[in-house]
Amino acid sequence: MQTTALQAAHPGAPLLPVRISRRNLRPNDVDVRVTFCGVCHSDLHAIHTPADQGGSFPLVPGHEFVGEVVAVGANVTEFAPGDAVAVGNIVDSCGRCAMCLVGQENFCADFPTLTYGGADREDGTLTNGGYAGRYVVQEHFVYHRPEGLNPAAVAPLMCAGITVWEPLRSAQVGPGTRLGVVGLGGLGHLAVKLGHALGADVTVFTTSPAKAADARALGAHHVAVSTDEAAMNAHRGQLDVVLDTVAVDHDLAPYLAALDLDGTLFSLGFLGTITIGTLNLLSGRKRLSSAGSGGHRYTQELLDFCGEHGIVADVEVVPAADVAIALDRLAHNDVRYRFVLDMRGIDDQVEHHA
Amino acid sequence: MQTTALQAAHPGAPLLPVRISRRNLRPNDVDVRVTFCGVCHSDLHAIHTPADQGGSFPLVPGHEFVGEVVAVGANVTEFAPGDAVAVGNIVDSCGRCAMCLVGQENFCADFPTLTYGGADREDGTLTNGGYAGRYVVQEHFVYHRPEGLNPAAVAPLMCAGITVWEPLRSAQVGPGTRLGVVGLGGLGHLAVKLGHALGADVTVFTTSPAKAADARALGAHHVAVSTDEAAMNAHRGQLDVVLDTVAVDHDLAPYLAALDLDGTLFSLGFLGTITIGTLNLLSGRKRLSSAGSGGHRYTQELLDFCGEHGIVADVEVVPAADVAIALDRLAHNDVRYRFVLDMRGIDDQVEHHA
Repeated sequence: MQTTALQAAHPGAPLLPVRISRRNLRPNDVDVRVTFCGVCHSDLHAIHTPADQGGSFPLVPGHEFVGEVVAVGANVTEFAPGDAVAVGNIVDSCGRCAMCLVGQENFCADFPTLTYGGADREDGTLTNGGYAGRYVVQEHFVYHRPEGLNPAAVAPLMCAGITVWEPLRSAQVGPGTRLGVVGLGGLGHLAVKLGHALGADVTVFTTSPAKAADARALGAHHVAVSTDEAAMNAHRGQLDVVLDTVAVDHDLAPYLAALDLDGTLFSLGFLGTITIGTLNLLSGRKRLSSAGSGGHRYTQELLDFCGEHGIVADVEVVPAADVAIALDRLAHNDVRYRFVLDMRGIDDQVEHHA
Repeated sequence: MQTTALQAAHPGAPLLPVRISRRNLRPNDVDVRVTFCGVCHSDLHAIHTPADQGGSFPLVPGHEFVGEVVAVGANVTEFAPGDAVAVGNIVDSCGRCAMCLVGQENFCADFPTLTYGGADREDGTLTNGGYAGRYVVQEHFVYHRPEGLNPAAVAPLMCAGITVWEPLRSAQVGPGTRLGVVGLGGLGHLAVKLGHALGADVTVFTTSPAKAADARALGAHHVAVSTDEAAMNAHRGQLDVVLDTVAVDHDLAPYLAALDLDGTLFSLGFLGTITIGTLNLLSGRKRLSSAGSGGHRYTQELLDFCGEHGIVADVEVVPAADVAIALDRLAHNDVRYRFVLDMRGIDDQVEHHA
């Protein structure tokens, strides 16, 4: 089957609509018409990553999308045409390792197959992402999307949302937990909403005093401007769990200092090398952790929780044709809090041109 | 009161017996006749630390010792002359901060007063350690020593022992926990004994194949030579908790890889700056932590546990006069597993000379 996708021909190239092939349905596959696809920081990174640093081109980004089921393979039991679904950044895994067996396919020992830029486990072809009209994916990595939520605003739950949900859940954040959230972007604003809904007492750390009102509107109980030394001192030893969503390298010591005894800091936004003094961990037996993406178990749980609590991302929906504008503004952190591309009709348009 | 102590006059100087003053008993003080004092790596470090790097001289080391109570202050209720006691590396704290109030004086917000090289909170004088005939310490930092244990072999429990006990307890190591111990020295050999007694399944990682039999004799169920890549691969994702007791900077990635989902690595031996890739933490939501020394709550618990289970350190007892030999051999890791100085009679000897 052919579909239209937004594709970068080489590193740094503009995303242009091209026709690509999706595989024929395998027995466990679901054919999804993509309606909305979130624009993740990872997409920006992937578009600019040269091949010698791990980039794969031509590249179709997009790994947090929603849509409707068009057709299903012969063995599919959980989905039927017309179903409202969502897909995240993993589309396959070994299925046999300890992590897969407990529903943490995101930590698959054989490395999970990513929604774009991955190698299909059957035929070795490069996976193309959700900036497209259609996506074919095996049913284990398709999720039921709750009724009553704005579909466009559900899309970011599938990457930004699950990335903060897994640490919230594994750290057992609940009523009374003193939760800190560092940074108020795509991940951070969902961490605030989800933490609030779980019953936590939420403190937002931001470099921008202008974001204080927004943080409170999202559900934060307290806001600390991280450049205000007195405010930071007032938060020393006050928190049980901190989710740090800042995407660039920065000093973690002030946020470790904000933890109480046996507290945990999850570094979620920055992928790279962390340097930390043991004494920042030692005094109070603080724990530094990380997490990323999500497995089957927590992903469906997140969607169900969001359905029950009416939680979605705050999004700015733009036409697929405006992807360059969205990427440029994202690169300048000019979005509250997530861009979502409207992919509806992209196949019709190009077929019309053809 | 005067006592004889082993003192370094300046950084790197030999430890020579000199007469020093101990304070007159305050109402909450206990006067302890020191019988055995362990030789900790920190002592070696302190002796060689110049003043401009935080060293304090003249220096009397020693912060893990046992002895008998000679006299008590007017308000002391928990101890009486003749009691068998032990003292660790903290002799005072603010007593009012959140950490002190939960019995974690080792993490006192105002920094605990160290047994040597600290400043007395009442008169500001420098504290002199347990390489001495007597020590005066407030009762809150004196611990009852269990009956039936070799006193010399109890001394190292007060620093090496509690440093591994706190992470074992806070990580809830118990029956069935898969525990790794990296390094088989003063801390490591006690981690193996204590982990075994708690019911954990213990794996020792060592660079030295020659230590495998020793590790098993101490209670390890499995031994992996850390330079054996195949052995290390076999342990990937197999452990719940790892205590890393190696005192020098080294790569933590292989030990993070040995952790299963949500496992915790405690870096206990090395004080300094750690560099770690977030991906080593991310995949499996691994946690990196540290810990050091102990508070009142866990210290008495450790001594009671060791009394019940007959656990002590494996020690080599040497006369106080041989302190230079012990320090030199410790610097070359030539001890299994802890030197203990026999301080008995040191006051008599010098008084005899005087």
